[in-house]
Amino acid sequence: MDPSLAYKELIERSHELGVLGSCARLLSWDEETNMPSGAVEARSRQLAYLAGMFHDRQADPRIAELLSIVAASDLAADVESPAAVNVREIRRDYEHAVRVPRSLVEELARTTSCAHQEWVTSRKANDFGHFRPWLERIVELKRAEAECLGYSATPYDALLDTYEPGATTAAVSDLLGALQSDLLPLLERILGAADAPDASILHRDYPVDKQRALGEAVASRIGFDFSRGRLDVSAHPFCSGIAPGDCRITTRYRVDDLSEALFAIVHEVGHGLYEQGLDPSAAGTPMGEAASLGVHESQSRLWENIVGRSRAFWAYFFRPAQEQFPAALGRVSLDDFHGAVNHVKPSVNRVRADEVTYNLHIVVRFELERALIAGDLAARDLPGAWNEAYGRTLGVVPATDADGCLQDGHWSSGLIGYFPTYAIGDVCGSQLFAQAERELGEQGDAFARGDFAPLLGWLRETVHRHGRRDTAAPLVRRLTGGPLDPGALVGRLQSKYEEIYRLTPVAASR
Amino acid sequence: MDPSLAYKELIERSHELGVLGSCARLLSWDEETNMPSGAVEARSRQLAYLAGMFHDRQADPRIAELLSIVAASDLAADVESPAAVNVREIRRDYEHAVRVPRSLVEELARTTSCAHQEWVTSRKANDFGHFRPWLERIVELKRAEAECLGYSATPYDALLDTYEPGATTAAVSDLLGALQSDLLPLLERILGAADAPDASILHRDYPVDKQRALGEAVASRIGFDFSRGRLDVSAHPFCSGIAPGDCRITTRYRVDDLSEALFAIVHEVGHGLYEQGLDPSAAGTPMGEAASLGVHESQSRLWENIVGRSRAFWAYFFRPAQEQFPAALGRVSLDDFHGAVNHVKPSVNRVRADEVTYNLHIVVRFELERALIAGDLAARDLPGAWNEAYGRTLGVVPATDADGCLQDGHWSSGLIGYFPTYAIGDVCGSQLFAQAERELGEQGDAFARGDFAPLLGWLRETVHRHGRRDTAAPLVRRLTGGPLDPGALVGRLQSKYEEIYRLTPVAASR
Repeated sequence: MDPSLAYKELIERSHELGVLGSCARLLSWDEETNMPSGAVEARSRQLAYLAGMFHDRQADPRIAELLSIVAASDLAADVESPAAVNVREIRRDYEHAVRVPRSLVEELARTTSCAHQEWVTSRKANDFGHFRPWLERIVELKRAEAECLGYSATPYDALLDTYEPGATTAAVSDLLGALQSDLLPLLERILGAADAPDASILHRDYPVDKQRALGEAVASRIGFDFSRGRLDVSAHPFCSGIAPGDCRITTRYRVDDLSEALFAIVHEVGHGLYEQGLDPSAAGTPMGEAASLGVHESQSRLWENIVGRSRAFWAYFFRPAQEQFPAALGRVSLDDFHGAVNHVKPSVNRVRADEVTYNLHIVVRFELERALIAGDLAARDLPGAWNEAYGRTLGVVPATDADGCLQDGHWSSGLIGYFPTYAIGDVCGSQLFAQAERELGEQGDAFARGDFAPLLGWLRETVHRHGRRDTAAPLVRRLTGGPLDPGALVGRLQSKYEEIYRLTPVAASR
Repeated sequence: MDPSLAYKELIERSHELGVLGSCARLLSWDEETNMPSGAVEARSRQLAYLAGMFHDRQADPRIAELLSIVAASDLAADVESPAAVNVREIRRDYEHAVRVPRSLVEELARTTSCAHQEWVTSRKANDFGHFRPWLERIVELKRAEAECLGYSATPYDALLDTYEPGATTAAVSDLLGALQSDLLPLLERILGAADAPDASILHRDYPVDKQRALGEAVASRIGFDFSRGRLDVSAHPFCSGIAPGDCRITTRYRVDDLSEALFAIVHEVGHGLYEQGLDPSAAGTPMGEAASLGVHESQSRLWENIVGRSRAFWAYFFRPAQEQFPAALGRVSLDDFHGAVNHVKPSVNRVRADEVTYNLHIVVRFELERALIAGDLAARDLPGAWNEAYGRTLGVVPATDADGCLQDGHWSSGLIGYFPTYAIGDVCGSQLFAQAERELGEQGDAFARGDFAPLLGWLRETVHRHGRRDTAAPLVRRLTGGPLDPGALVGRLQSKYEEIYRLTPVAASR
């Protein structure tokens, strides 16, 4: 067979998988936004069916045949070419798929679809006992998946690699360790500061419809295209790049909290800009897909924190915010507002966490999910272990399981090994932004004018348009020449918080 | 092969088709309620892919093998047994599927998915020219479908049979002719009445959120289960029984019109009660599916008109309506309100039509879609032909194409041959209701107490639980012993309108 025909057939099969996957993503999105509770069973059957079909097509022996024909040719000889990336990633997906039996794939889809609904119920009712059997089953299934996938050091490696190809438990452990030891001293200095911003201004009366209007305006302005996307409400904010031209983000509103919904929107918009920035001509192939969850989180954390919590961003958006909420914000100054959205306080909640403590929440989850997968922690002991780890790591203990080990929906969706990608993304995002400013110049003035196009354009060219070419570490290497390194993140946080909290710079205090 | 094993495999395959179909239905529902405009192309690809896959499985030669094994046994010997109904209908679906090539199925799905969006755009812009090429293509494809399916008298028969198995163009023509000749004299008497209700009270200020609240309360009270369903907004109201436990209805609101959204809700709830009343233990098999669109419309028209426009219904719901809209309805009497929702006036709009003129709208559509399929009417001549037919049949002419030939979404979705099922349903529904009252006694007192359970229970037992056992005509035969006959509908309308319009009864006026 002619290698170019073999490649063509691989791409056609990739397109078919893309369509099938997009159907499943719509069903999952609907499950979290619209689905009536009575449909849980039917939905789990639908998702299991589509997952099984997807798996069969991805593990089709024909793909191995086609891959070997292409491999024997010089079609993918230039490893930097789009064809080579496509071939490399189709092979990766194939090898991943053949290792996991269809029955396990279906069982995981069925179980997580139901479990997610049970998690929503359990969290509402603050009833961990209700969720526990589901978590036990998911841990069991994910362990089985890890065994199928194989690993060199520990089963958790196999799961981590699903979300961030190439990442290892050891490397993540080092990265989180470094973050923890760099951030704790900064946190101590901040907590010891005489002059803390007043975060209570964010907890006045913020009518939900006005929050939505402001959120939409912000999302549009920074570049989210609503003709190719939506913003809805779900129990846990997320972004789903359902299909070309169909990227959907969600948030959740509380009338007494301006920042939770708004920064969730900016975060999810960051994901959405990545999805909307993928090369449409490569849709349905690896070159038209997001590289990894680490890279995804680099985009969301970059927009949420580096852009969305900057003073320049609010120099532009504070007036529209005041117009939406004259009673709550009419007499607040820009500086006080900027301080409030950067208020640092160890808390029990990851999604609402400030930038300094955020990665400590990841430290807790990384420790606990590793223990669950290793069998060192039983699901029934999770609430106690969770509270103990929070006390040890952040110095706070959740009052309820709803605010504790039930706060995140990831595990209920089978996403174990996902959390470290937030930290990888945070580190990567700071390195990307530093590089962007090295190339484009300082962006504060542009942000203050409401101009986010230069930054977005840079991200599109250097990250989005490259599809699955590079996961987080090789992406940073390609753009900066160096490794994934917490230095940019830590340095940025130090100078930001020294200014906001009027800290004495470290050098001077020595 | 053991016949019972063959039957078991048929049922398993039916379940699989049920799951696949339910995925496509969710995608279609989403297309009309949520989908961003940029996703049109991707959605049409998704739906075409699922339709093709569905078709392949439905036309799988293995089904013919299994059917012949079962047919040679006595497993389905009792034609009244659920197994016999399942076998009969699986055979019908199989024979339908093998006649139509997959390529045509996919092309129809792809085209109608795009065309529906183009219809929405065209209607908004009142631009028939924009929609015309899509209509041309759909007529072409539906003609091709009719040729594949085969027919004895005319291609339109084949399309009609898709929605109402067993119905023929000739029989529909007779039915509509009888309705027209019985209803026109009644219409003339009504239009000549001295004492007409004042419909303007329905066009006061009715805030949309209050309309939604009232609509939800009405839907719940008459039996729609929101834990297994939803109510949303779409360009054209519809109901989709997506999956077991997941039945979704839509409406559309206008702030200056109380009745359009509300009666659309009651109509769609009628469909929804049917879907929610199907036997859950038979889900995914013909015995757990709706029988035909005629039977479906019998339920929706029954709830909308016989129940929803009765004085007894409003004896219960008028107070809640006044509470939602004190300014608009506070000083209106129940009788005046009941008169207003039964106001008769020939108009250009089918969905908002009164019960007397409604079937005249169907007469127009039946005439025109037959002509389109027969090739006697070109798509480009539709606006003129539409307006001419309205003038001739209803004595009114739409001012714009948006209010004329672009008003319904059916053709854009490929639903040609569907409209007659409204008339079949209307006739069937009146016969069913008359039979229900013969068996249960007069229902007015129950309705006035807000008690719709006896009627719903009767419909569940006699109609819903029987799945695809009987289409409209055999259903009426089973329950009443007689044929489908407009007598019950016409008689009911005569006595209703003689009361509301204080007409001299026909017998006395002679």
